[in-house]
Amino acid sequence: MNKNTKVNAAILIIGNEILSGRTQDTNTSTLATWLNSIGVKVNEVRIIPDVEKTIIDTLNILRKENEYVFTTGGIGPTHDDITAESVSKAFGIKYEIHKEAFKILEAYYKPGEFNEGRQRMVWMPEKAELILNPTSGAPGFSVENVFCLPGVPSIMKSMLGSLKNKIVGGEPILSRTISLRTVESEIASSLTKVQDENKDVEIGSYPFFHAGKLGVSIVLRSENKTRIDDCNIQILKFVTEKKIDIVDR
Amino acid sequence: MNKNTKVNAAILIIGNEILSGRTQDTNTSTLATWLNSIGVKVNEVRIIPDVEKTIIDTLNILRKENEYVFTTGGIGPTHDDITAESVSKAFGIKYEIHKEAFKILEAYYKPGEFNEGRQRMVWMPEKAELILNPTSGAPGFSVENVFCLPGVPSIMKSMLGSLKNKIVGGEPILSRTISLRTVESEIASSLTKVQDENKDVEIGSYPFFHAGKLGVSIVLRSENKTRIDDCNIQILKFVTEKKIDIVDR
Repeated sequence: MNKNTKVNAAILIIGNEILSGRTQDTNTSTLATWLNSIGVKVNEVRIIPDVEKTIIDTLNILRKENEYVFTTGGIGPTHDDITAESVSKAFGIKYEIHKEAFKILEAYYKPGEFNEGRQRMVWMPEKAELILNPTSGAPGFSVENVFCLPGVPSIMKSMLGSLKNKIVGGEPILSRTISLRTVESEIASSLTKVQDENKDVEIGSYPFFHAGKLGVSIVLRSENKTRIDDCNIQILKFVTEKKIDIVDR
Repeated sequence: MNKNTKVNAAILIIGNEILSGRTQDTNTSTLATWLNSIGVKVNEVRIIPDVEKTIIDTLNILRKENEYVFTTGGIGPTHDDITAESVSKAFGIKYEIHKEAFKILEAYYKPGEFNEGRQRMVWMPEKAELILNPTSGAPGFSVENVFCLPGVPSIMKSMLGSLKNKIVGGEPILSRTISLRTVESEIASSLTKVQDENKDVEIGSYPFFHAGKLGVSIVLRSENKTRIDDCNIQILKFVTEKKIDIVDR
């Protein structure tokens, strides 16, 4: 893939615990930040329940629409961990014991501890490539452009290192944030003008409340640093004219 | 709608700042927890960018597949706030000044402060019903089964009170959590048996690391308290047999 091509990805968060509100998803933010840093833009995130048909149908849409799909959740040893089997069915390939994963976990556990439940974690789609897990042994895996990671945030995060050489990104997406002591409506029309004149830079405006004070963060995003700098100058111009304070945030 | 019917919803989070990883979404968890408490089950969450066509297409899928759709984000005064116009286009209805919203904001701001940027927030789909905002004035709105809320978490949360009488839920979804000092693989086969014998109760298993110790939370979910109690007894039976400690979490 050419280094200058835009590379798009989808994130698929699998788990009833997120949909019930019991668990706050943080994997989206971790994955998205990391993907941006290696030049992969997240197009879409979906959060779905532990339901086989839903996982299969959603995967089959996302994997066709995106260069990469990253899933989190459902690859542990219990009955509600159905991601690996669902991925096999989505691709129409066998679900079987992965010999290399078996060896890794056999060596990881003490003799006698590699029990039936744990052996469930070495069942994967045929010819899956492993994503090594430096935290708790059980690897993730990939099939074609679908990369399956665990749901526990600390474990998921620890696996990004071994995932990195499997992903070919484009130019990293750069960003700059300008935080102002103002409200959005004060700058809305000036900012619209800057956006209209710089359609290739993504300009976002985000109100914040910090230490009891109102403010707005303007975020500029592009693969091209010069274009970000150009917009920054135009924004600082109207900020100065309007006598708005710039703040750290 | 009958009180015993299952009522399903989708949440649509609109905003580049979530997809870039810059902002950690918390609205999903807030909304999902609240919806569960009033008997509405979240089927699916999607996070999409501030792109008109994407908003329209996604809304038109979700509003047909779910009893309710809740959107957050994109209803402020700046150029990237395009939710209201996109909703109008999704329904094929006019995008116009909402007279009641205009009156509310005219009264909310000091004379002369209801400027052009702020007036943008009273443009809504024709015949939109308002969702009042006790925090910062600018109301959200609903069209048919689509409810549009702001993205700023504290403001969004403050509007749930005025949203409540517009939503008819089913039986509240009850849950019970049993936290154990064990690992998932130790209980996987026993738990599978309980799930197989109680298919009407949703049983989730979630490993945790807390204060340096490993554990597993088993979460039982159903509208029927008796069925949760039945499963609880079956789980406590194998927990006692295996001499696993129950812990608070």
